Amino acid sequence: MSGEHSELRLARAYLLRVAEPPAKAVLGFIADNGVLAAARLVREGAVPAEVGEETAARRGLDRAAADLELAARLGARLVTPEDDEWADWPLAALDIAAARGVRLAGQPLALWVRGSVPLVELAEHAVAVVGSRAATGYGEHLAAEFGYGLAGAGFTVVSGAAYGVDGAEHRGCLAAGAPTVAVLACGLDVCYPAGHADLLDRAAGVGAVISEYPPGTPPARHRFLVRNRLIAALSAGTVIIEAARRSGARNTAATARALGRSVMAVPGPVSSAMSAGCHEMLRNQEATLVTGVDEVLEEVGKLGIDLAQRPEVRCSETDGLDGQSMRVFEAITKGDGRSAERVSLESGVELGTVRALLPALELAGLARRCESGWRRADA
Amino acid sequence: MSGEHSELRLARAYLLRVAEPPAKAVLGFIADNGVLAAARLVREGAVPAEVGEETAARRGLDRAAADLELAARLGARLVTPEDDEWADWPLAALDIAAARGVRLAGQPLALWVRGSVPLVELAEHAVAVVGSRAATGYGEHLAAEFGYGLAGAGFTVVSGAAYGVDGAEHRGCLAAGAPTVAVLACGLDVCYPAGHADLLDRAAGVGAVISEYPPGTPPARHRFLVRNRLIAALSAGTVIIEAARRSGARNTAATARALGRSVMAVPGPVSSAMSAGCHEMLRNQEATLVTGVDEVLEEVGKLGIDLAQRPEVRCSETDGLDGQSMRVFEAITKGDGRSAERVSLESGVELGTVRALLPALELAGLARRCESGWRRADA
Repeated sequence: MSGEHSELRLARAYLLRVAEPPAKAVLGFIADNGVLAAARLVREGAVPAEVGEETAARRGLDRAAADLELAARLGARLVTPEDDEWADWPLAALDIAAARGVRLAGQPLALWVRGSVPLVELAEHAVAVVGSRAATGYGEHLAAEFGYGLAGAGFTVVSGAAYGVDGAEHRGCLAAGAPTVAVLACGLDVCYPAGHADLLDRAAGVGAVISEYPPGTPPARHRFLVRNRLIAALSAGTVIIEAARRSGARNTAATARALGRSVMAVPGPVSSAMSAGCHEMLRNQEATLVTGVDEVLEEVGKLGIDLAQRPEVRCSETDGLDGQSMRVFEAITKGDGRSAERVSLESGVELGTVRALLPALELAGLARRCESGWRRADA
Repeated sequence: MSGEHSELRLARAYLLRVAEPPAKAVLGFIADNGVLAAARLVREGAVPAEVGEETAARRGLDRAAADLELAARLGARLVTPEDDEWADWPLAALDIAAARGVRLAGQPLALWVRGSVPLVELAEHAVAVVGSRAATGYGEHLAAEFGYGLAGAGFTVVSGAAYGVDGAEHRGCLAAGAPTVAVLACGLDVCYPAGHADLLDRAAGVGAVISEYPPGTPPARHRFLVRNRLIAALSAGTVIIEAARRSGARNTAATARALGRSVMAVPGPVSSAMSAGCHEMLRNQEATLVTGVDEVLEEVGKLGIDLAQRPEVRCSETDGLDGQSMRVFEAITKGDGRSAERVSLESGVELGTVRALLPALELAGLARRCESGWRRADA
């Protein structure tokens, strides 16, 4: 078992480095073939054209074992969907949203995590607080207050470790002696931003520093956008403190909304460009106005209950399934496994959607993978 | 004709002084008996008990002629519903709301107005900007900007002449050389607040200073609340700039909402108690968030169109009438007039509602008063 896990882990580490997310074709290929076979076929170049496009450039880079060793030296580990600590429900929302046509990278293949608290625990009661790098004193002050207050209320606060709002929020959370989660857009060994080296060490000490990117990966603009989906997915709600009209924080907010999570924005002086994005979101009813921690708790408290109830409902029966999920479920049997293509044909649901819904059905305890493909889970 | 008007004017001036608004029973008594008869009966004390309660204390104070003369010396006049310049539609909304069960004083019996612009013109494109007396520099700055900007866009800006937000708004409007309307909670000759004597003179010079209270009436807490309904009714929308959680501005906002007018609130720093009322209104969806004049124009622009179309619809046909209005309309005929009591009996609509709806039907061109009571208007 542990040998297989270890192989799976190596395969995921390999694929994480080879296929830069979002790698939609690779995710589909993995859903169809399983991780081990997919990794082997990618390595051999024996893949469909669109998978080739996403992997050709790096498929020779098999540094999985070295990456795992380097991570261990950094006090980090690779957390995979096979691990008990994987944050199943929070992250599965990414696949479900993608299946519903949201333009969003799916669930990560695995996550590099530095820190000793299990990932699933960190995501259990988590709120994201994000905002402008170029925050004003007002924004930084509030971010620290929100971080401190949410931590005091038992929430893990998730953010992006940037200067400005993110950093102030992490510091506020740490000042309360509570775990905070920093999600990076670069490798765990790449200290970015440089001035936050100490802050990241402290975050890893009580909470976690997380990245989808293998060691050595430098930050890049497109990685921030891909990273933002993890901040949104790991949190029950996202609070925006200061955002300009165009801002990364609004991207995180849009993702949170697409995932059905609560989105909150803090108002500020109308004369401040750093609050203009928040005000625009509030005017467009893209966010709920919050002025303090109590109001955030009021908002995510409600949501927390919903999230907690969801698995039970889905596990016990199929009543909670939407139309497409039900059709996909009907297209698999308790007998032999079926390929995603076959399920797509049987159900009439588009292949890409089937590929995303099957893992969701698996998480709901309704389907499972076997050698020959997908079948219904035993009751 | 002018003799009758003059008598009517005297009767209204008398009743305004005798019956402190809200004088619900007196309004009903006037609706049933007409102004002239009502004034005579009140003077004689020949009135039902509840009308007596509202008038007994002052019915001997017949200073109508003196009030009109004093007003003339102040450069003011009494504007009555019989005058062409009466702001029919804006003010009738008060009766309609009261008929729908909103706890609100009805339409004023008349208004004392200082300034030369006809009232109906001032109310045609008007926006109210109100807020805290104890405004911060932020609030005063914004109020002046909103006043200036709205004036520049062709709107009359209505406010309450208080220190803080109100005063800054009047000054901003005047700085644009545009009419502003100050609605007082005291007589026009009572300079309140004292520091705004010059401001009120300037407002009267290009716009108007208005009060429901006869000369000499001192300001009082309950008068501010009664006054607030006039600010709301004369404006297509009300903007709140800085309000504490409990504040008169929120009372004006609630009235505007009850009248179906647009209510807007400007956010501010969440750390400011002076913005807490605005934020609470925004959270409760009692107001639309606005950050500048453009957004106010967007909001009242829409509403302006609605208001402009309403009379046409109602005048041309009865299709636009709601259930109760239709029943009241059905209960009057083209023959002899009927009393409000008779209409109530015929229609099954509660008497108080009938009394408010009949004047509304009159304004809509569907009903008219005659000697024997109410009848349908001639087509």
